[in-house]
Amino acid sequence: MPSPFAERLADAVLSKDSALVVGLDPQPSLFPAAILERAEGRDERSRAADAIRRFDAAVIDLVRPYAVAVKPQSAYYERWGPPGIEAYEAAIVAAKRAGLLVIGDIKRGDIGSTAEAYAAGHLRGAHAADAVTVNPLLGSDSVVPFLREARSSGAGLFILVRTSNPSARELQDLRVDGRALHEHIAQLVREWGTQLETSRGYCGVGAVVGATMPAELARLRSLLPEAWFLVPGVGAQGATARDVAAAFDSAGLGAIVNSSRGILYAFGDPACADWQSPIRDAAKKLRDQLREAAHQATR
Amino acid sequence: MPSPFAERLADAVLSKDSALVVGLDPQPSLFPAAILERAEGRDERSRAADAIRRFDAAVIDLVRPYAVAVKPQSAYYERWGPPGIEAYEAAIVAAKRAGLLVIGDIKRGDIGSTAEAYAAGHLRGAHAADAVTVNPLLGSDSVVPFLREARSSGAGLFILVRTSNPSARELQDLRVDGRALHEHIAQLVREWGTQLETSRGYCGVGAVVGATMPAELARLRSLLPEAWFLVPGVGAQGATARDVAAAFDSAGLGAIVNSSRGILYAFGDPACADWQSPIRDAAKKLRDQLREAAHQATR
Repeated sequence: MPSPFAERLADAVLSKDSALVVGLDPQPSLFPAAILERAEGRDERSRAADAIRRFDAAVIDLVRPYAVAVKPQSAYYERWGPPGIEAYEAAIVAAKRAGLLVIGDIKRGDIGSTAEAYAAGHLRGAHAADAVTVNPLLGSDSVVPFLREARSSGAGLFILVRTSNPSARELQDLRVDGRALHEHIAQLVREWGTQLETSRGYCGVGAVVGATMPAELARLRSLLPEAWFLVPGVGAQGATARDVAAAFDSAGLGAIVNSSRGILYAFGDPACADWQSPIRDAAKKLRDQLREAAHQATR
Repeated sequence: MPSPFAERLADAVLSKDSALVVGLDPQPSLFPAAILERAEGRDERSRAADAIRRFDAAVIDLVRPYAVAVKPQSAYYERWGPPGIEAYEAAIVAAKRAGLLVIGDIKRGDIGSTAEAYAAGHLRGAHAADAVTVNPLLGSDSVVPFLREARSSGAGLFILVRTSNPSARELQDLRVDGRALHEHIAQLVREWGTQLETSRGYCGVGAVVGATMPAELARLRSLLPEAWFLVPGVGAQGATARDVAAAFDSAGLGAIVNSSRGILYAFGDPACADWQSPIRDAAKKLRDQLREAAHQATR
């Protein structure tokens, strides 16, 4: 069995002195022309998947010195059917080979043997992610099968607690017994976390907590002292590295921060000749900003 | 553009006098030996996918006189990677060819361009479902892209409102301002429903409402008079056709009821020679029981 995810993540964050996760949201319509020109395939879906595979491979190579993990977003691969899923697995294999951890952003949530099938499919085998995101709306029935799979494969989980999008408030912020619904979810995450091993103070059940609401982020940090936070919303969604400071502990651990479009499409114009340098520079810049935020943390 | 889903569903329910949905939860470990023996493929995943394809084709052929729709559960196909997704699409194509509607049970929930990718991938094209299930935890940001896709492709949506599993109560039943959280979700579903066309009193935004809590089912029925209910939980999960009666209107419309394992694996012993008759008989029996429940409805 590989060492538990919480340990591998802490090791990566400390050895790279980085909290950066690069989200792989591959949208061919935004790709550099140079990538699209070389894409091959017998139909539209195969060509899109081939372009994604080439783009992902380049991005992984560009960001590997700065990021601790990549987070492929399942939707952009599923969009293209079976060839897209092949590209998803290719991204996982390429990232692992580059020494990066892989968080599959699948946000699945279902029960019983269905959840078992999701967990086995996404966390077991060479083509599987090191951790996945999970939607908790169906309660423990939907999380326990993932916990069981995570225990046997050494994988990690990130449960949606408070997402970064504007309409997250419609349900996640509703008041239940004087607390926000997302605080009730946090309580469940804390209980589920006792099921997986702890390393350097953090367990294998993390939480997705958006960066766009710094006050909620700080409160959730105190409610979930042992959970790794996977923080989206920095960059394209408007939050800055400074907004995330409260998520780190004094050792610089406790949070990893995702940026997708702000790094992937940093080159802007698809026709530009050097699209690689902007990607590399954007990853390095955010890595540095997060490093500063983590070092300033004193909790 | 095809006619809207709500219209196609009402037509199917009336012309077949049936509310039966057969859930496709293909688990090779439960398949008849005769199916597994003939499965071919270069590796475990391809062989599993080939067995699934053969089993699904047989099930679709057996249940087509009795069911209005099949509901392939994405997890059991994703489990086997790209070949599994090919089998998922094969099930959709086979079911459509058999004159059945297809509800893709994907329970996706994500935002913005990610939700757009999910919606396009699962609702656009010949290999796409006629409707999908959606998880509303992220709020309107996660549903609006599906509504937009549904409007252009004539597809339908079923939003998770109150699921049938025991731990659904951990979050879905929490009290918010004197009402259960699932009633707040129902209110959102009602608003989203105004975005799609109505046919025979029902719109294209339906609700997943479990059969295991008849009192909640009746209350949600009154809160959501225009929503088709997709009702899981009958059979293996313990509810009976009678528990669903409150979901139907006096014309026998308003609800479709899913059974998965109770039909798929009705033969019991994988070694039995005639595994087909028990599947056919189980589908016919539940169709008849639901017909009786629907005819007794007087709301």
